[in-house]
Amino acid sequence: MLSLVDLRARIASGTLTPEGAVGLCREAIAARESAIGAFITLAEGAAVARTGPFAGIAVGVKDIIDTADMPTQMGSPLYAGWRPRADAAVVARLRALGATVLAKTTTSPFASVDPTATRNPHGAGRTPGGSSAGSAAAVGAGMLPLALGTQTGGSVIRPASFCGCAAIKPSFRLLPTVGVKTFSWALDTVGLFAAGTRDLADALAHLAGRPEIDGATVDNPRIGLVRQDFAGAAEPEAEAALEAARRAAEGAGARVSDLVLPSSLSEAWACHPVIQDYEARQAYGWEIAHHRAAMPVGMGRQLDAAAALTAADYDAARRGAHHARRALKALFSEHDALLTFSAPGPAPEGFGSTGDPRFNRLWTLMGVPCVNVPVPGDRLPVGVQVIARFGDDGRALAVARLIEAALARG
Amino acid sequence: MLSLVDLRARIASGTLTPEGAVGLCREAIAARESAIGAFITLAEGAAVARTGPFAGIAVGVKDIIDTADMPTQMGSPLYAGWRPRADAAVVARLRALGATVLAKTTTSPFASVDPTATRNPHGAGRTPGGSSAGSAAAVGAGMLPLALGTQTGGSVIRPASFCGCAAIKPSFRLLPTVGVKTFSWALDTVGLFAAGTRDLADALAHLAGRPEIDGATVDNPRIGLVRQDFAGAAEPEAEAALEAARRAAEGAGARVSDLVLPSSLSEAWACHPVIQDYEARQAYGWEIAHHRAAMPVGMGRQLDAAAALTAADYDAARRGAHHARRALKALFSEHDALLTFSAPGPAPEGFGSTGDPRFNRLWTLMGVPCVNVPVPGDRLPVGVQVIARFGDDGRALAVARLIEAALARG
Repeated sequence: MLSLVDLRARIASGTLTPEGAVGLCREAIAARESAIGAFITLAEGAAVARTGPFAGIAVGVKDIIDTADMPTQMGSPLYAGWRPRADAAVVARLRALGATVLAKTTTSPFASVDPTATRNPHGAGRTPGGSSAGSAAAVGAGMLPLALGTQTGGSVIRPASFCGCAAIKPSFRLLPTVGVKTFSWALDTVGLFAAGTRDLADALAHLAGRPEIDGATVDNPRIGLVRQDFAGAAEPEAEAALEAARRAAEGAGARVSDLVLPSSLSEAWACHPVIQDYEARQAYGWEIAHHRAAMPVGMGRQLDAAAALTAADYDAARRGAHHARRALKALFSEHDALLTFSAPGPAPEGFGSTGDPRFNRLWTLMGVPCVNVPVPGDRLPVGVQVIARFGDDGRALAVARLIEAALARG
Repeated sequence: MLSLVDLRARIASGTLTPEGAVGLCREAIAARESAIGAFITLAEGAAVARTGPFAGIAVGVKDIIDTADMPTQMGSPLYAGWRPRADAAVVARLRALGATVLAKTTTSPFASVDPTATRNPHGAGRTPGGSSAGSAAAVGAGMLPLALGTQTGGSVIRPASFCGCAAIKPSFRLLPTVGVKTFSWALDTVGLFAAGTRDLADALAHLAGRPEIDGATVDNPRIGLVRQDFAGAAEPEAEAALEAARRAAEGAGARVSDLVLPSSLSEAWACHPVIQDYEARQAYGWEIAHHRAAMPVGMGRQLDAAAALTAADYDAARRGAHHARRALKALFSEHDALLTFSAPGPAPEGFGSTGDPRFNRLWTLMGVPCVNVPVPGDRLPVGVQVIARFGDDGRALAVARLIEAALARG
């Protein structure tokens, strides 16, 4: 993979120019993209800035995030050729940092459940996950050092796990969603894919304008190992990854204890789809009214079913989430981080599904920062998920980095 | 003014057709619009639905709210002729109810501080307020029974007070902001203008899909009268309106007591602009980067100054708001509603300013429902503001209705 931090160091030292750094991405894309299909639009002639901290950093942007100079097509023929007027806020920030927006990446239509044709870079017959399929695949395949995705259920952490790259779903609204197609305003979160946790910390610190995110450290962290039994069982590969991460963390001085979440959290897990689908049915009011037949099959079915949800259901779900957030806050007084599955197992075979977000959706609802740490091995990628308290993205990344480093030592 | 509820009753009883009801609006527009300038786009051939609860209800939509069939120009030449792909969620909902979107209404550029050319229907040499200038003026002038606005500081309640119509800024996110140009995602709230509080209750209940909002009643409400001294003094006309509303409420059985807000609320009042401007600078990242010179003068100055705000300032302001929301929740255990100024006084003369939101911004930050009740008189319009706890929009409207009825009895 292409490391953002390494590229920036080489540019800073003068051994690589910004043009050269973007050229490395173009070469990797020429070599791998035809087999993967991570991109929906490539900016062939994109300008490369000479100054700015991210000069020379080529970025992929999920195609539900507005770009003024490239189509934004939402993965759907309903938005074929659609050109927004303005950049999304997070894209404007990337460009202000000097980054080159080199590509729009494939997305499940409207960032929902229906798969794309994108192939997993680690297994061409497997899904890269979704909905941020192209962003995960592009970074996992070493074609880009940084890509933007979004997560409403598990659309950042799960595809990162499947594609073997690092990713962060930051604290809710740490990165603005202005200019991002809404699915659920209470849940939609802009996230980042990169080669490793150092790259994520550097990118997030710059994008959020919060340098302290990158400098955070934590010694002998107290980690709660959470199995999320309410979400069902994980596959043996995911179990093995979690166990490997636990041993690595302990070897690096972490105090890891098994933790059963209080009932308010398992109840909140069931609240997530109610909030998501009640809001999505409003957010997609125009598409439902005018283009229902052209909507993707799975999402259409989901929104049809959501018509049965009442305002009272929604209010009860929001109350459930509120109680769970308070319970979770209390847990974090005794734990620096939680450690759990990123996905039920490795990327499923075929392209009929993008996989299951059941180990992700509670944390999206809680709004807390989540990091996928790939667990090295010679088989299909599987990651683990590191979670910290709301607003402490630096701590999530610091614990993730400790685990990543310990896993690399073996 | 044209009453939504009256029009619906006449249509239901067969004495008026939906076409006829929209025709009444067209006639009023033909008579008054040239002197007021409330509209930026009129849908000359707009279809009128024959069925649906809002069939025959012509609606004006503030021009920062997306419409698929009409330009959405944000009050700015930067968006001249801009055509969104989809309707905003709240517009899709209006159409699903059978309403006719008859016009896009003028807005201060980007719903910020720079005035429009729209004239106040009650004083042609005066501002209608802003930023929802055209929506307030159109309803106040009797050209439309319903109009949509947005409030980030005081952009719904203040222009309603200036234009002599009723309005509600509902609980935060009761109406979705999907498809509404973002200024501050923590504050932006879609609101409604109508002739009276019954009309507001009917409209909000339908738009939100919450029938109970319209049926709410409250006997002998406990009302806290709040002067917001931290926001400065009101003008004599606003003082007189507040006193008239107090006497009317007491005459109708309300128990009104003077209430000094705890310090956390006055501190939160000062937090509002920090949150608003820190977010606006991100939300307008593209416009600032590419079109700074074409931005309106006042807003440009505001966003330039916002560059000095730090993430730490923002976090402190959010904490301040959080504490104040808890304090306010406690106050509402002893009060059904608060009663305060809607604006510092009647609409100022001239068009150099849209007036001051200083009596509105705390309540926008608190996310609580606010209703403007016009206080009848033979001079320039002045309203009072009725506020209830978060999520209890029905109670805010019920108390507002009690005051409105008592004022009408004189």
